[in-house]
Amino acid sequence: MLTFSVPPLHHEKMDEAKEYIDSLTKPQGSLGRLEELAIHLAGMTGDIQPEILPASLVFCADHGIVEENVSASPQEVTYEMALNMVGGGAGISVFSRMIGAPLKVYDLGIVRPVPHDDVINKKVREKGTANFLKERAMTEEEAWEAIEVGYEAARQAIKEGAGCLIVGELGIGNTTASSAILASILDIDPEIVAGRGSGINDQQLIRKIEVCRQALALHKPNKHDAIDLLSKVGGLDIAGMAGAMVGAAEMRTPILLDGFICTVSACLAELLAPGSVDYMILSHSSVEPGHKIAADYLHKKPLVELDLRLGEGTGAAVSYPIIKAANVMVKDMATFNSARVSQK
Amino acid sequence: MLTFSVPPLHHEKMDEAKEYIDSLTKPQGSLGRLEELAIHLAGMTGDIQPEILPASLVFCADHGIVEENVSASPQEVTYEMALNMVGGGAGISVFSRMIGAPLKVYDLGIVRPVPHDDVINKKVREKGTANFLKERAMTEEEAWEAIEVGYEAARQAIKEGAGCLIVGELGIGNTTASSAILASILDIDPEIVAGRGSGINDQQLIRKIEVCRQALALHKPNKHDAIDLLSKVGGLDIAGMAGAMVGAAEMRTPILLDGFICTVSACLAELLAPGSVDYMILSHSSVEPGHKIAADYLHKKPLVELDLRLGEGTGAAVSYPIIKAANVMVKDMATFNSARVSQK
Repeated sequence: MLTFSVPPLHHEKMDEAKEYIDSLTKPQGSLGRLEELAIHLAGMTGDIQPEILPASLVFCADHGIVEENVSASPQEVTYEMALNMVGGGAGISVFSRMIGAPLKVYDLGIVRPVPHDDVINKKVREKGTANFLKERAMTEEEAWEAIEVGYEAARQAIKEGAGCLIVGELGIGNTTASSAILASILDIDPEIVAGRGSGINDQQLIRKIEVCRQALALHKPNKHDAIDLLSKVGGLDIAGMAGAMVGAAEMRTPILLDGFICTVSACLAELLAPGSVDYMILSHSSVEPGHKIAADYLHKKPLVELDLRLGEGTGAAVSYPIIKAANVMVKDMATFNSARVSQK
Repeated sequence: MLTFSVPPLHHEKMDEAKEYIDSLTKPQGSLGRLEELAIHLAGMTGDIQPEILPASLVFCADHGIVEENVSASPQEVTYEMALNMVGGGAGISVFSRMIGAPLKVYDLGIVRPVPHDDVINKKVREKGTANFLKERAMTEEEAWEAIEVGYEAARQAIKEGAGCLIVGELGIGNTTASSAILASILDIDPEIVAGRGSGINDQQLIRKIEVCRQALALHKPNKHDAIDLLSKVGGLDIAGMAGAMVGAAEMRTPILLDGFICTVSACLAELLAPGSVDYMILSHSSVEPGHKIAADYLHKKPLVELDLRLGEGTGAAVSYPIIKAANVMVKDMATFNSARVSQK
């Protein structure tokens, strides 16, 4: 079992960043949220002009709950899309290339072997999670193991030069697990957070909500305990993401949150290692209804609203250039003094 | 005098783009506004997978109206910031570099000679516009001449390979001229559209509104006539931007609108060449109050809301990667067939 320790934000560097930004050749405050982002980056990294090279980590796993007809896509899509990701054709593949982010794809439990060297085999369960309507999704040991895969993946990416992590997922059925987790953490009915995922119909949505209700009634997870939540109604992909976030937060590395599933993982990361949330930036506002609820719980405001609901980390990758803009502002803009520009 | 002819959007290519996007490996519609953007790009360019290399064009000029104490910055800032732009230290300089956009800076009437080869000397009036509280800002011939500078600048950038234009401005006092123009076009009181620009105080804001009211009472510009508006209460920078937009629209080239002044120029471009608006994408939502009003008039919804109010084209440059994401989606993502991914 890992124990975590997340450092607080560096408030002195945040003040220093604010003062420096006010010396740049623009009216004070005129770059709005970019200025806030640059100050936040300084607080996270402890550097007012940090290097924030991006890296994308995608955690893939299958979900036993798909037996309950809660998903629009057949289960083999997890396997097929993992190959598409490393083949370069998935959304996260093309957006990662666009922003210059190396993409690593981890298999934590796709139901069949994935015959491709670039899909990193870290299977914690050979057949994905169990159907949590009938039994625990996984053991507590397995939840820890999946967290550790993510944790080590983040540490490795950072050691290889990443200064900003995009954390994504792939797993048919994972919005059902995420809905159950979030409903439990917030003590609300699953109806409030469950959405159409990749495009289920009305009947499937009713079933999805019912499945979550029954699972929570069966397992009664402890809403303060990430391991209990993950092992009872979670997913290996979700656990991997939470672990990656904790790994990044411990190393003072900004984490760019994507959509619903990713933001639920962020809630778990905060349970595992309080303070992790300070290292998170919410990239976008998903159309999945639970996303805003999870974001509000974390007190996060999205950078953009583009009606995305693809997952994989795509919203984070698409929004990364805005973080980059905040970074180049503070690194490359001239000051009033250096450019000899008059102030009021 | 130029006559303009803007082609309609290519609706067949838009349908083709929509169909193609639905074949990509993602749930249908799951990339939200990126999908809408890709369809719009197809309609503008007539190509479902267009090249959209960006280029930034900044039009600079001084404004006689600054005599009336309507501005937070001294007039020499126009000159100083033009040098800062070509020196690489201004907001638009660093964001243009970030997105790989060549930056061209045009001087249409900065009050003093600018001794730098990269500030392209196209002065229409050596001393900027006249104080339009007392006389016309410029002659009709001069308004046409400034439009033509912008028009030719856009055509040249496109001939040199640009597939998406970022059109920016620099000119202390230009929010006052923009407020007068927009109030006139919409037949509303200047109080509704005038804001604090680069940071004026309450007393200056009251003065700015009064100046606009008096100028409109004096000149009574014809709200349907861009040349009448520009020559009476306009600016050379504003005219240059409008000309650039018309030049781009005629050549089926997407235009990324920035903030308040840019969006007022867009209203003038639409008056000059109806249909130009179809070639415009609104990048962001400025905190300047007139921006939303001008955007609504053009029926444009911003891509991002980052509380920006710097101008120079910075909001457009910062938002460009979102357009680029729409473009790489349609150019680089695999289809269900090509990647052998199962559909529902």
